[in-house]
Amino acid sequence: MGNCMGFSDVCNRQKNTNIRWRLPAVCFVWQLSMIVLFGVFVRYNEESDTHWVDYRKEKNITSDIENDFYFRYPSFQDVHVMIFVGFGFLMTFLKRYSFGAVGFNFLIAAFGIQWALLMQGWFHSLDYTDGKIKIGIENLINADFCVAGCLIAYGAVLGKVSPVQLLVMTLFGVTLFAVEEYIILNVLHAKDAGGSMVIHTFGAYYGLSISWVLYRPDLDKSKHLNGSVYHSDVFAMIGTLFLWMFWPSFNSAIADHGDGQHRAAINTYLALASTVLTTVAMSSLFEKTGKLDMVHIQNSTLAGGVAVGTAAEFMLSPYGSLIVGFFCGIISTMVIPDFSPSRLLENTFDFTGPFNKRVPTIQGGYQAAGLCVALCFGIGGGIFVGLVLKLPIWGDPADENCFDDEIYWEVPEDEESVPPVLAYNNHVIPNKNADMRETNFVEQS
Amino acid sequence: MGNCMGFSDVCNRQKNTNIRWRLPAVCFVWQLSMIVLFGVFVRYNEESDTHWVDYRKEKNITSDIENDFYFRYPSFQDVHVMIFVGFGFLMTFLKRYSFGAVGFNFLIAAFGIQWALLMQGWFHSLDYTDGKIKIGIENLINADFCVAGCLIAYGAVLGKVSPVQLLVMTLFGVTLFAVEEYIILNVLHAKDAGGSMVIHTFGAYYGLSISWVLYRPDLDKSKHLNGSVYHSDVFAMIGTLFLWMFWPSFNSAIADHGDGQHRAAINTYLALASTVLTTVAMSSLFEKTGKLDMVHIQNSTLAGGVAVGTAAEFMLSPYGSLIVGFFCGIISTMVIPDFSPSRLLENTFDFTGPFNKRVPTIQGGYQAAGLCVALCFGIGGGIFVGLVLKLPIWGDPADENCFDDEIYWEVPEDEESVPPVLAYNNHVIPNKNADMRETNFVEQS
Amino acid sequence: MGNCMGFSDVCNRQKNTNIRWRLPAVCFVWQLSMIVLFGVFVRYNEESDTHWVDYRKEKNITSDIENDFYFRYPSFQDVHVMIFVGFGFLMTFLKRYSFGAVGFNFLIAAFGIQWALLMQGWFHSLDYTDGKIKIGIENLINADFCVAGCLIAYGAVLGKVSPVQLLVMTLFGVTLFAVEEYIILNVLHAKDAGGSMVIHTFGAYYGLSISWVLYRPDLDKSKHLNGSVYHSDVFAMIGTLFLWMFWPSFNSAIADHGDGQHRAAINTYLALASTVLTTVAMSSLFEKTGKLDMVHIQNSTLAGGVAVGTAAEFMLSPYGSLIVGFFCGIISTMVIPDFSPSRLLENTFDFTGPFNKRVPTIQGGYQAAGLCVALCFGIGGGIFVGLVLKLPIWGDPADENCFDDEIYWEVPEDEESVPPVLAYNNHVIPNKNADMRETNFVEQS
Repeated sequence: MGNCMGFSDVCNRQKNTNIRWRLPAVCFVWQLSMIVLFGVFVRYNEESDTHWVDYRKEKNITSDIENDFYFRYPSFQDVHVMIFVGFGFLMTFLKRYSFGAVGFNFLIAAFGIQWALLMQGWFHSLDYTDGKIKIGIENLINADFCVAGCLIAYGAVLGKVSPVQLLVMTLFGVTLFAVEEYIILNVLHAKDAGGSMVIHTFGAYYGLSISWVLYRPDLDKSKHLNGSVYHSDVFAMIGTLFLWMFWPSFNSAIADHGDGQHRAAINTYLALASTVLTTVAMSSLFEKTGKLDMVHIQNSTLAGGVAVGTAAEFMLSPYGSLIVGFFCGIISTMVIPDFSPSRLLENTFDFTGPFNKRVPTIQGGYQAAGLCVALCFGIGGGIFVGLVLKLPIWGDPADENCFDDEIYWEVPEDEESVPPVLAYNNHVIPNKNADMRETNFVEQS
Repeated sequence: MGNCMGFSDVCNRQKNTNIRWRLPAVCFVWQLSMIVLFGVFVRYNEESDTHWVDYRKEKNITSDIENDFYFRYPSFQDVHVMIFVGFGFLMTFLKRYSFGAVGFNFLIAAFGIQWALLMQGWFHSLDYTDGKIKIGIENLINADFCVAGCLIAYGAVLGKVSPVQLLVMTLFGVTLFAVEEYIILNVLHAKDAGGSMVIHTFGAYYGLSISWVLYRPDLDKSKHLNGSVYHSDVFAMIGTLFLWMFWPSFNSAIADHGDGQHRAAINTYLALASTVLTTVAMSSLFEKTGKLDMVHIQNSTLAGGVAVGTAAEFMLSPYGSLIVGFFCGIISTMVIPDFSPSRLLENTFDFTGPFNKRVPTIQGGYQAAGLCVALCFGIGGGIFVGLVLKLPIWGDPADENCFDDEIYWEVPEDEESVPPVLAYNNHVIPNKNADMRETNFVEQS
Repeated sequence: MGNCMGFSDVCNRQKNTNIRWRLPAVCFVWQLSMIVLFGVFVRYNEESDTHWVDYRKEKNITSDIENDFYFRYPSFQDVHVMIFVGFGFLMTFLKRYSFGAVGFNFLIAAFGIQWALLMQGWFHSLDYTDGKIKIGIENLINADFCVAGCLIAYGAVLGKVSPVQLLVMTLFGVTLFAVEEYIILNVLHAKDAGGSMVIHTFGAYYGLSISWVLYRPDLDKSKHLNGSVYHSDVFAMIGTLFLWMFWPSFNSAIADHGDGQHRAAINTYLALASTVLTTVAMSSLFEKTGKLDMVHIQNSTLAGGVAVGTAAEFMLSPYGSLIVGFFCGIISTMVIPDFSPSRLLENTFDFTGPFNKRVPTIQGGYQAAGLCVALCFGIGGGIFVGLVLKLPIWGDPADENCFDDEIYWEVPEDEESVPPVLAYNNHVIPNKNADMRETNFVEQS
């Protein structure tokens, strides 16, 4: 807007961020495709279908409460909160990108879960007798998981891409994820209940690779918006806490019934608690007067849940979980480089390898192979998608318009754009005086 | 406050908004009445009573886990969050009415659930052997549902009524609701698990009718407060997301055990996801540069959950749910007229009729009849209650004091309490300079 | 920082709040101790261990759904939200202490739950066959409960202590709590499902006693920060509502399976609803124009849940619960003295005694004895810990630095402290004009 006045060369270079036809077209066409594909492929499974009554009798199930719904629904809703409020609000920390953080997170998650139901369905829930994907509560949870990978990737490009690019990222991300997941879980038979490698490693490297391809050398032009303000950091803590609190549900949601879910929840609870203490310790050590940094609190505290994810269901024992969390807090605090939107979660993944070794199981080798697959898909897929996103057709913002909600959102006029001098001592002079001064000014001359 | 200086005629017209005796009187008398009525009528049902042990044996129930509590409690808590955080925060979007949004929502919901337990109890849970209402977890859920109708109505009069008026609205609203619900569910035997017509249609028309009767031609006087600011829109997203995420619980909370609840959750999850994409598409189409509007994101995204509500338990099939959501996003975005507090949810209801026709069931006719009943109760009841609320005894705000927390709340002195004149046009002069200028002014003369 | 300019005597008295070595040292040493102690003492119980399969057969349990996990996990996650979001955000009401409120709450809760698992384990879950503490979901809930006591105490010293002091408070608090709880529940056999006396009375008096010992006569020096602003009060409502909504889970989480949990949830739901109405009534009565006070809404509305806690599982009957809530709203509104951080929850406890008398049970005497034990431990322990915290080694803030996040947190530069010219460009009178004006001034003279 006013940015252009007197800076014509900047204006000339400004990109066209009008997405009025591109965004609706993508949304409509993709949603219609979903409807057609769901019509052809997706049906209820025997626990969500009216056949449940017969199935129950046939399988000698004594009560409706043994429907998988009751084993998993509470965890599912917690995971759902992590995806929409957790990831969404975690990214509100930028001073003027909260609408984009929550809103685009909402958009890509809503598309992603539908596409994930299809992609994961083809690989995991296809009923070969009739060629249909049969869905139940576990599929919904897996779809949410899958989308988590794309949201982690979103963290790496936050504020630097258009919603159309995000939808493209999500389309490819979910596709790559489903194939990667199939190889890791069904070919290699690696265990990954909490999705540490399938979700987090893939998502982080996918996002970083895209971010690397889309590198903007002149991003300094919008550096005044690339930071937080007081209340935006408080909003981000809502996201942090909902992710942190519900991570036990994330890691136990699709674990085995009974002791499996029980143990996964306990292990995650303990690892997360341990991580908080070492994160705080490291954060305080980094600053010369020992002050704590919200960047650490908002991100590294979650590392314990990620790291314990792969093995959450294992007999880690309670102290084993604490140890995982202890080191995660240290490492993840150290690798977060500096204050930037790419700070999100990216650094919280790559110590799942070492810890797996501590699990006394022959799975170790396969787990490592699984990690490699996740890395290859993340990096390779990310570079490819990054190149696609470089095409000048997606409506991405110019360097000087990054991290700014004004580009893609109608933003209300705000109280807060008043000079702070006034803001703090409330003796302000109303407009009329301002006019008077102008008059005065005239009179003088 | 300072509003009066120099505008004596405005002041003369100002209404008496002192509610010091009216509000406490209503709260105390009504709460005491609740206690007496509960004392006379309300008891635990056999699943929440110590007789459960005997009942279990008698009914040959093998485990405590088959107590209805475990089928419904997780959904109940989700619904509870929707009522208090979801609706409460959805309405915080106004720049200076967040206390009223969350606080009055809290008050009327807390009263409403008690009155609803009684009203719904008389109609649905009366034990004719002893004349007592027997309550359990399902009654708590139904009470929350009932209150949802009143909170939707609150959205239509947000910022324009006093808390006493809101309590009166809630008293009548719950009463009308219980009768309407009885007719629809027990006389017409229409299905409405998610309460699309019983709750949402009734609530929306009830609120709109009251709003229409209370029409304020001079509301422009407080238009400077009738809008959002950046952070108030982020707060409103908390409400939106909790409503959106937990809608599967809303629609499945009182569905049949087993596949009923399972299917209702899946259908709602899918309809909601689909709605988000079409809402975003339509929002972008509406603005000439394709920018998205928070008003749409905060409201229309919820339409899918409402629309699928009536039929959530039906064998809609997954693609059927997507289709419902698809059209809801489009229609509800189109009918939201303009930026005003009445934007809330009102427009998200009246397409349940058409979609029911797609459900291959003989219920269709009864569903349509049910919709008519909901409309009659909503409009008729709303007009009556609106006329009651026009009596000049309720402490409602003057036209120039609408949308302002100052009237009913002690508001802290704020960084942000800069005179709105300045707040809105940003040409302000800092204090010190102001003083200097005055000196300067003197020196000149 | 700038506080010192021209006030050298103030500066001389300033304390050393550099916690760079103290905080990390305490975190690391304590976390390592936890790992060692967990390694020696803590194991999974039979329901979270792989032996569950055998245990199930042995005990003739027909389904995995009868694992205690499924009875308690939904309530556990609700309680977890109360601890981290509920208490954390409840304390964000101060204008510049939101980081400390949420962040230190996070830190001490994460440490406290680990220490509580050990302390409570030794008293309640020790398996004498092998000397190990066997943990399952109920232990996690109890650990969260225990920490709630410390967080209530945190409310009484909010803004006036260092994070190191808070960790010390938590260490002693959990220890005292575990002993107190053992005496009340296992020696006196008092009932206290919702922990009204074990948790809330203890926590409140513990915090008040510490606060009394640490009394700061010159606290007026930071009174400009000892208050809320508009948005900080809205953030605090997030905490209030999550505490209020999930209190039925708090009171029912460890109640007996079946009707016990069911009834505890109903009783709490009703008591809380009733409290809201009397709180609003009292709040309105207190102010001469009947305006409502956020302090009351944020705190007194919770009293009903606390008061009904002890007896939540009892056959209070629905109207009994309403009566408890009715009086709690009145009393707790009256005893909140004035606007101060110590406003939190402290006043919501000491009417559990009288109400217990209404419960027709021979337990009455033991309940009263339990209350005395809670008071003795709270007051005695608080005075002792307060004296420990007076040692000048903990990095606590000077009187003029209380309630200020700047001391312990890296706080972002804010719109509110940065010239808007730079921040947004919104046609403010930019710096240059200011300079021009000065030039003008010079020219005149």
